[in-house]
Amino acid sequence: MAYADAHILIVTCASQTGLVAAWSGCLFDAGANIIEIHQHADLAEGQFFMRIAFTAATPPDRAILAQVAARFDAHWQFYPAGARQRVLIMVSKFDHCLADLLYRWRIGELAMDPVAIVSNHPREATRAVATDDIPFHYLPVTPMTKAAQEEQLWRLVTETGADLVVLARYMQVLSNEMAAKLSGRCINIHHSFLPSFKGSRPYHQAQARGVKLIGATAHYVTADLDEGPIIEQDVERISHADTPDDLIRKGRDVERRVLSKAVHYHLQRRVIVNGHRTVVFPD
Amino acid sequence: MAYADAHILIVTCASQTGLVAAWSGCLFDAGANIIEIHQHADLAEGQFFMRIAFTAATPPDRAILAQVAARFDAHWQFYPAGARQRVLIMVSKFDHCLADLLYRWRIGELAMDPVAIVSNHPREATRAVATDDIPFHYLPVTPMTKAAQEEQLWRLVTETGADLVVLARYMQVLSNEMAAKLSGRCINIHHSFLPSFKGSRPYHQAQARGVKLIGATAHYVTADLDEGPIIEQDVERISHADTPDDLIRKGRDVERRVLSKAVHYHLQRRVIVNGHRTVVFPD
Amino acid sequence: MAYADAHILIVTCASQTGLVAAWSGCLFDAGANIIEIHQHADLAEGQFFMRIAFTAATPPDRAILAQVAARFDAHWQFYPAGARQRVLIMVSKFDHCLADLLYRWRIGELAMDPVAIVSNHPREATRAVATDDIPFHYLPVTPMTKAAQEEQLWRLVTETGADLVVLARYMQVLSNEMAAKLSGRCINIHHSFLPSFKGSRPYHQAQARGVKLIGATAHYVTADLDEGPIIEQDVERISHADTPDDLIRKGRDVERRVLSKAVHYHLQRRVIVNGHRTVVFPD
Amino acid sequence: MAYADAHILIVTCASQTGLVAAWSGCLFDAGANIIEIHQHADLAEGQFFMRIAFTAATPPDRAILAQVAARFDAHWQFYPAGARQRVLIMVSKFDHCLADLLYRWRIGELAMDPVAIVSNHPREATRAVATDDIPFHYLPVTPMTKAAQEEQLWRLVTETGADLVVLARYMQVLSNEMAAKLSGRCINIHHSFLPSFKGSRPYHQAQARGVKLIGATAHYVTADLDEGPIIEQDVERISHADTPDDLIRKGRDVERRVLSKAVHYHLQRRVIVNGHRTVVFPD
Repeated sequence: MAYADAHILIVTCASQTGLVAAWSGCLFDAGANIIEIHQHADLAEGQFFMRIAFTAATPPDRAILAQVAARFDAHWQFYPAGARQRVLIMVSKFDHCLADLLYRWRIGELAMDPVAIVSNHPREATRAVATDDIPFHYLPVTPMTKAAQEEQLWRLVTETGADLVVLARYMQVLSNEMAAKLSGRCINIHHSFLPSFKGSRPYHQAQARGVKLIGATAHYVTADLDEGPIIEQDVERISHADTPDDLIRKGRDVERRVLSKAVHYHLQRRVIVNGHRTVVFPD
Repeated sequence: MAYADAHILIVTCASQTGLVAAWSGCLFDAGANIIEIHQHADLAEGQFFMRIAFTAATPPDRAILAQVAARFDAHWQFYPAGARQRVLIMVSKFDHCLADLLYRWRIGELAMDPVAIVSNHPREATRAVATDDIPFHYLPVTPMTKAAQEEQLWRLVTETGADLVVLARYMQVLSNEMAAKLSGRCINIHHSFLPSFKGSRPYHQAQARGVKLIGATAHYVTADLDEGPIIEQDVERISHADTPDDLIRKGRDVERRVLSKAVHYHLQRRVIVNGHRTVVFPD
Repeated sequence: MAYADAHILIVTCASQTGLVAAWSGCLFDAGANIIEIHQHADLAEGQFFMRIAFTAATPPDRAILAQVAARFDAHWQFYPAGARQRVLIMVSKFDHCLADLLYRWRIGELAMDPVAIVSNHPREATRAVATDDIPFHYLPVTPMTKAAQEEQLWRLVTETGADLVVLARYMQVLSNEMAAKLSGRCINIHHSFLPSFKGSRPYHQAQARGVKLIGATAHYVTADLDEGPIIEQDVERISHADTPDDLIRKGRDVERRVLSKAVHYHLQRRVIVNGHRTVVFPD
Repeated sequence: MAYADAHILIVTCASQTGLVAAWSGCLFDAGANIIEIHQHADLAEGQFFMRIAFTAATPPDRAILAQVAARFDAHWQFYPAGARQRVLIMVSKFDHCLADLLYRWRIGELAMDPVAIVSNHPREATRAVATDDIPFHYLPVTPMTKAAQEEQLWRLVTETGADLVVLARYMQVLSNEMAAKLSGRCINIHHSFLPSFKGSRPYHQAQARGVKLIGATAHYVTADLDEGPIIEQDVERISHADTPDDLIRKGRDVERRVLSKAVHYHLQRRVIVNGHRTVVFPD
């Protein structure tokens, strides 16, 4: 849904009585019209999550919203629905996720501004993808230069004003420090299997184990590698006839689909982190 | 979610400002605590739909809810969440949907009270299903006796106090009058294909046409056969190697899955009819 | 496909030239007509797998098939397609898989003869399922009595002539000895997640971890618990709104679907074990 | 699977005894090694279909294959597995299918040579897609100029030696004559719904009807519009909250996925037309 004057309000706080009434009443008093309301009460944790999309000729006064928030000790965020996030995309040699994100951006499906593409491989490695005039930064990395490379990366994040960093099959592990700095605004994609496999060449392991499904998981990056809050997952059916190369091919489809969906949800402010988990309000 | 003292409020009215604030405010004033709120604004039709699940030590006064409804010219319904609907199930010779519904009832998954099983075939036709002590009514029907049979059926609906009638592969078309009487509380299941086929033996037609997916649709019954508001749909993948018998076998799985899901949503008051369509608030 | 005089030939051997020609030539000479041929060459392992369904007025002479097998040092099996396997089903308290298997048997979908139901809980525990006149055996088990209980179980397997044992949510681990005795003819179902979880209450772990998909895996039982050759897997989509109880409910659907499919493939001789994996020739 | 010296043999004929033996025997005598054999007997129509992939140091003599074919009155085709088909892609304004096909070609997933892109709109219309140095032909069309435009198109097909024409959301109907000329080598993609909708703006119709699934169908083009033999189908789940624009967005994903899969199967010679249907041997 697209409205010229729409806004998104995100609220998180401890569960308590009167939350919906207070926030919706405050918006009504400010002349706003609610288009969409999503709410989730995590009863086990006693946490409350709400996303309200509303239109208003004049946006509500932030001071008034702050007063309501103070009453409930709530964490809140408030965005114009049309605000485009600035996105820095990182990639290594496999560019299927990058290609998919950029195509969806070009046709207006992903409302983002790609401000930089960063790769630990030269531009030639991702030659199948037209990156137009998005600045491409080649930041090679070795165990020795990792700290310096991440410093360069952080400078780029800062200089470009990136709101979101997408690891679109970036095959390097971010340091704990970097993961902490990008907390809640860095999305990674990785393959997933039933059961899961540790170590390298997971598609080869999956083929050797004879699984009948392969999958992918998009999640926020945390210091704990591949264990951050999950945003989206999906699977693809395979068979005994699939070679590891076939699995890699079929894996590309599910990887790009899952990552693009996760980025779409994030850009629409539909994902709220809840500890090790996420609340995702679907569109 | 199960709460001893939970209630469900369903509201439908023309879209207008202040709806969420008014209803949530009214519930807050009545000492209620909102557990779950779902809302949908059909912008093209200018209609508003809301389902609120809340707990309250004392249920809100119906007079107060009626006052709010009057302000907005709203249609509203109010149920204890734990109230079990009385369900009459109709069947012909194929009993896979009946078997599935009854199993889910027995293990407590479907919170309903089956008050009668009605078939146009004798009890022996559905012998694979244990119906325990649910009264079984054999109501044979021919073109000549249809009116009389439907009279018997209606008497059963009335006498058993059935809230919902489920056509679980009942292979007779209800008359327009009967469909009208059961409006909004009669669910049917039928097979669906891409493209769709008219006439008899649809699985044979699907096989002859070489479709790669077969599906099923659960919908409310209206005078317009197989064209009522859709509640749930799903598909199953097939191949050139499938004979019509294979399609019928694979169709059984998707039919029972789709019908049980639709009944589950209906029993939980998660389905609201919106003209020729439904709003389904998922759990 | 059902033919009065159909047979199934299964061949496994080292990959080599001339296999298809030799076996199909031998069947042609014996007056057989091939209905369906499936073949798989595992190139990494150098193994060849073939399943041929054929009709023949007179079944081919086993001595002639043995001669062909000897030329290629092949392992082979030969069955009348209509031969029904004798199946012993084991269950604990959750009877959704048992109910599904028995319903499919009653309507003729699973061509098996259930010869016994064995439970470590009394008959009352699975009261939602009509077991008709299938003998029910209550074999309680404690760590102290495990050896004796498995002796009883083995006696039952022997006495009933069971070809296949299905662990339909039997919540006890078979001993390594028992698993070895039932090698290749004992199918288990267990839940699966991305990532996978060790230990008890996996649905609670899955909910705590915030996964977006839950799944189930049917596999042959081996001494290595839950790690035997996988026959079939599937998943179900879940959301942050699902409680552990919702996951258990949704898990039932995928568990019963996956187990019934795996049993169906096994009964049709469509599964061939290939080391830690299976070859499954779909119908 | 990729082999330097692999070949594909496709055989279609009336069902009869001895077919597998004769063809596999002939290949064995020619020193070939069968890698993969797929076969389908359409019992209702009495038709036999076979695809054999084999390796051979020297390809078998075509005269010998022709002799076997003559014995069975069989239609046969014989290709080097590595032979790349020349593909002409047609597009209008929506370029998501074009973009997907070209990306898969660039990374080596689709083994084809794109020889031309033809559009009834100027190059600017599909500006989101990099077409590199693939010749782009702007062939505008009006009811008055349709015959002349198709003549130009046919000349292009001839001059480029195109083996396959892909209608990648080309929004014009080919004439019956053109469809006939391209019989068996022209693939189209169109949206599919349960039930199906006739006429324009199908996604708007689907939204108005309240369907819960949208789908896409890839099929060979025949004179009977949208009714040619189906190669592949898939669906995407939608909800009441989706606007027609959301359906169009979600439809793009399933359209491109289904078309690319159909083209992949065709390029691998895995599709055989069987009257109004196809036989698709999966990889």
